Amino acid sequence: MLISEQALRQFTYNIFLAIGCSEAHAHLSADVLLRSDMRGIDSHGVARLSGYVRLWEKGRINPKPNIRIVHQTPTTATVDGDAGLGLVVAPFAMQVAIGMAKTYGSGWVSVRNSNHFGIAGYHALMAVEQDMIGFAMTNASPLVAPTFSNERMLGTNPMCYAFPAGKYPPMVVDMATSAAANGKLEIAQRKGAPVPEGWLQDAQGNYTTDPHALKTGGSLLPLGSDREHGSHKGFGLSATVDILSAVLSGANYGPWVPPFVAFLDPPADPVGQGIGHFLGAMRVDGFRPVQDFKDSLDNWISRFKSAQTIDPEQKVIIPGEPELEAELDRRMNGIPLVDAVVKDLNELAVRFGVEGISPA
Amino acid sequence: MLISEQALRQFTYNIFLAIGCSEAHAHLSADVLLRSDMRGIDSHGVARLSGYVRLWEKGRINPKPNIRIVHQTPTTATVDGDAGLGLVVAPFAMQVAIGMAKTYGSGWVSVRNSNHFGIAGYHALMAVEQDMIGFAMTNASPLVAPTFSNERMLGTNPMCYAFPAGKYPPMVVDMATSAAANGKLEIAQRKGAPVPEGWLQDAQGNYTTDPHALKTGGSLLPLGSDREHGSHKGFGLSATVDILSAVLSGANYGPWVPPFVAFLDPPADPVGQGIGHFLGAMRVDGFRPVQDFKDSLDNWISRFKSAQTIDPEQKVIIPGEPELEAELDRRMNGIPLVDAVVKDLNELAVRFGVEGISPA
Repeated sequence: MLISEQALRQFTYNIFLAIGCSEAHAHLSADVLLRSDMRGIDSHGVARLSGYVRLWEKGRINPKPNIRIVHQTPTTATVDGDAGLGLVVAPFAMQVAIGMAKTYGSGWVSVRNSNHFGIAGYHALMAVEQDMIGFAMTNASPLVAPTFSNERMLGTNPMCYAFPAGKYPPMVVDMATSAAANGKLEIAQRKGAPVPEGWLQDAQGNYTTDPHALKTGGSLLPLGSDREHGSHKGFGLSATVDILSAVLSGANYGPWVPPFVAFLDPPADPVGQGIGHFLGAMRVDGFRPVQDFKDSLDNWISRFKSAQTIDPEQKVIIPGEPELEAELDRRMNGIPLVDAVVKDLNELAVRFGVEGISPA
Repeated sequence: MLISEQALRQFTYNIFLAIGCSEAHAHLSADVLLRSDMRGIDSHGVARLSGYVRLWEKGRINPKPNIRIVHQTPTTATVDGDAGLGLVVAPFAMQVAIGMAKTYGSGWVSVRNSNHFGIAGYHALMAVEQDMIGFAMTNASPLVAPTFSNERMLGTNPMCYAFPAGKYPPMVVDMATSAAANGKLEIAQRKGAPVPEGWLQDAQGNYTTDPHALKTGGSLLPLGSDREHGSHKGFGLSATVDILSAVLSGANYGPWVPPFVAFLDPPADPVGQGIGHFLGAMRVDGFRPVQDFKDSLDNWISRFKSAQTIDPEQKVIIPGEPELEAELDRRMNGIPLVDAVVKDLNELAVRFGVEGISPA
């Protein structure tokens, strides 16, 4: 089913209002989820809406959080999200970072006591709109095993770096630090299709192509897949995200990160509060004039777009290009939703007495 | 041959003096190279000394650079290395970053007009000594092809993140963003051994296990090896390093980065000056009390060290552990040098009239 951005945005806003969010928070939360759907990252958009609602039902999401700075210097701060939606906590923290960067050149915020923040790219792009370089990371429910281990110790812990360009759209590197993101796994699960070797291992630590292996004690592998191909690097990156997001802020880290799914309880022995994020902003003109930077980045992008390729039909893809293409397509044609998501959303509609969704 | 740290340090210092470095710069440059040899990263230590000398002969390294800040805000700066050794330019830039962090919480420096800076870990650890988190990146001679390309467009562009721990040594994530670092390739070349599929492709873009493939138009692959296993993520990380180090500072980027080997001329149409680095420092107590952070990081490390493993004999390795083990071993037993390096160094000794090296 195809649905218009506007209709899906209104529906999502209504649901967030229904669970007790303020109008401003409902608006912002809907904006973060819709941006994900518009950018083609279907796993992080409205497909997760019922997941947030279930966490709220369990009392694990506070719809009226008192988000506040608990520690700071001129360019660093720790924010306590008061168990709010990460969808509003992370933008708050990024605004703090941007404000510090305006005055001092850069700003860095570590966040504790938050929840899932949607796509990292949304937050990093807030900085880009101010001609700043944006950084966004978060830890997440443990699904990934370190190199040599078969225990789920880390989330897919994404890192995002976003840069303002001139004639080109912003360049956005937004990536899970695991070999494959959860979203790709979910697609394979729906299709019942095997996944490539190197994405997953079973409970014993053997490669498996079964997309359902996580249900039987399996784990995702770090970027690099095995030691010989650099999985210790993927592990190192994921560890970096975990430390900057949670060890630095006082959130839960590693295997103590509370699960996103409401049917699993958080660990009984937390080492911190909620999940953690790390956001940063640096003024481009803190280093060189903005136009010089944009001209150089445009030249960088042009050169890489015209790099020699193995298959003449398959050009080099600049980080962020696929998301941009999705956005142009969906603006024109609407957002495709799979049946399971439509059903899920219409159940929410009935439950909260808001208007359901229908095709564009 | 095994040589003592002290003897190799004195020898290296003498060579840097002989090419015209100040005593302070010779001391610092020797310290950076020796730290690499001590940490077991043999490819980045004295094995490269004759390479630096050859660049100096070609006039591409200025032994008496006027390293200076050319642009700044309270927490950001651009440094011009004046074509000096990266071994002195990067520590200068990191001192600038640390100084800003002392006053404002964080400091970020992009560097242009520099040369190879040795191991990233050296620079990042300077921040750790001040109870700060250290960041160090550099771009490098193009050897790596982006996903879908068979053209060398990027260096092995390392990223390093270093964190102060309490009872444990600092945690250091120091990694090339390619599937395999150049050093690993050099080991295979010396042994004449094939390398794993996924490290290299030949000129046509087919996987090859020939460790000499770079000599016949081949290229290294980004971390992830192929698109299915996330090579676009390795490409994205490498691009991030290139942009922060060079597009932001005004250094050469992408395929324009001058080669480290002196027998290859730099591109005739430079887009910037020299190579670029990016260094950063954040005060831990800009986020939470230092002891709280160290206690949590110790707990993180303990938990990951005791993660369940696939093979009971092979524990999880914490990032930075292998380098630390090498350092303890080499402090005790001396630094092992392969014959080719000993020969190389003794040729330098004869040429500059300094005392050669001999076994410990």
